[in-house]
Amino acid sequence: MKARITMATGTETANIAIIGLGLLGASLGMALRGKPYRRLGWTRRAEVRSWALANDVIDESSDDIKSLLAKADLTVLCLPIPRIMEYIETYAACWRPGAVVSDIGSVKEVIVACGEKFLIPHGVDFVGGHPMAGTEKSGPYAAFEKLYAQAEVFVTRTADTVPAALRLVREFWQAVGTKVVEIGVREHDILVAHTSHISHILALALTEAVLDCDLKTQALRYSGCATGFRDTSRITSSAPSMWREIIENNQPAVLEAVREFAARYQKLSELIENRDYDQLEAEFAKGKKLRDAWIGYKNGGQ
Amino acid sequence: MKARITMATGTETANIAIIGLGLLGASLGMALRGKPYRRLGWTRRAEVRSWALANDVIDESSDDIKSLLAKADLTVLCLPIPRIMEYIETYAACWRPGAVVSDIGSVKEVIVACGEKFLIPHGVDFVGGHPMAGTEKSGPYAAFEKLYAQAEVFVTRTADTVPAALRLVREFWQAVGTKVVEIGVREHDILVAHTSHISHILALALTEAVLDCDLKTQALRYSGCATGFRDTSRITSSAPSMWREIIENNQPAVLEAVREFAARYQKLSELIENRDYDQLEAEFAKGKKLRDAWIGYKNGGQ
Repeated sequence: MKARITMATGTETANIAIIGLGLLGASLGMALRGKPYRRLGWTRRAEVRSWALANDVIDESSDDIKSLLAKADLTVLCLPIPRIMEYIETYAACWRPGAVVSDIGSVKEVIVACGEKFLIPHGVDFVGGHPMAGTEKSGPYAAFEKLYAQAEVFVTRTADTVPAALRLVREFWQAVGTKVVEIGVREHDILVAHTSHISHILALALTEAVLDCDLKTQALRYSGCATGFRDTSRITSSAPSMWREIIENNQPAVLEAVREFAARYQKLSELIENRDYDQLEAEFAKGKKLRDAWIGYKNGGQ
Repeated sequence: MKARITMATGTETANIAIIGLGLLGASLGMALRGKPYRRLGWTRRAEVRSWALANDVIDESSDDIKSLLAKADLTVLCLPIPRIMEYIETYAACWRPGAVVSDIGSVKEVIVACGEKFLIPHGVDFVGGHPMAGTEKSGPYAAFEKLYAQAEVFVTRTADTVPAALRLVREFWQAVGTKVVEIGVREHDILVAHTSHISHILALALTEAVLDCDLKTQALRYSGCATGFRDTSRITSSAPSMWREIIENNQPAVLEAVREFAARYQKLSELIENRDYDQLEAEFAKGKKLRDAWIGYKNGGQ
């Protein structure tokens, strides 16, 4: 059995406020079913709040976000990056001193700086979080209980991080069933530029290279695209505004990853141009070995 | 009910020789279960032939490939590209006049030229085929009955193609449950360079950019790679020799696709470098629209 988190308030079951009930927020509520947390959920649209209450996504809601924040032991802001920062600033005075605020944003340096700046003066702790989970879909109705199953979650530590707050956030994500990895904010942003953000740029470039053509060519290419293209381009179907905001808030690291990819791609292009097929095959073999080892790790090896 | 193909030989059930029982050959045998074809199967390794007979992948085998080819109304060469061309030349005299030979190779110009050169003098017809089906796995034990379900299959027509042979190959693939698309050999090779081959090069470049680094960085990146990376890089786990052979036999078209992708990627890189996020978001929106429309087509729309 998982131990209940005993909060400073003396309640046995922690109040978790999930702010934003899109894919990540609603899936988080679902993943907490049966766990010892009371789920206070809020999102802008009243009909989504009703849907979430009716479908056991959350336990309690309100049209007054402030009343929920005031009750929360831990708040997880499941919003787009600009909204996370806007809500921190707007509602900074609403949380009780000793409460902990976290988020699920894909970049951490700008968000954690904002959280610490506006919340510490109110005696509220901010710990950045980033679950490596998502699909190309978005919105509450794309949510599902297993979204976070076996995902890894980055939790940030800075010079101002309070150990008890960090522990609370770690234990929360462990209870959800994820694997927690502690990381610095800048280190995080450079990391995900390589492991995640760059993929969105090349999937987009591929989609455009293949499908952005005259209609006659496109009709033929529709037939020529199969499961390889489907998977390589999948994330192109993600929300455009979300990816704009992620890149906008992580530009230097993304640019570094963009150049790293370009260098690797250029090298492969030259092998093809020079008909150096032995070396090309060696590169394919190296790539297969690298990816198969990672898949082995993800499947429980390591 | 599907009509039985009546062959020139007068038999009611056509003899289909499946040469090569790897992922594509063995899956083809499985897909033909319950269809009015007698499946003659051959592959180099005797234990795979036994496995295929024991698992209803084929109906008949032999350690003598020539005896099977002599009985075949239609032969489908399910081999790597160099082996397809080698077998055509080696066994050209083994088929009966009037028999039809086809293949599943990912390039068509070199294979069809070889097929016509060596088989027409023997009164045997060659029609190139290329089912857009496969996974990153290979070998007989990766085979499954549904590999070809709803796949599109390119069937080539040249100045030397005999209409009855083309019809036989078309009807065969329709019986398997695929959608047949007729195409010229050069047009095919240019098409798949864009819709398939290029994806393998950029998935490889991505895998190297993300995972080919010092072990400490790699350990962290293992955590930072999630479903986005998994899918974008999936085809990197394909057989290296196969992709070397495909690119080697389609170099000019692949190089054209490599350059098309590079131009698109370069444009996106510049938007990021210049912090032109409005235009970047517009590109993300365009890409999403293009891919979602293709997915709609694949899911039965159009």
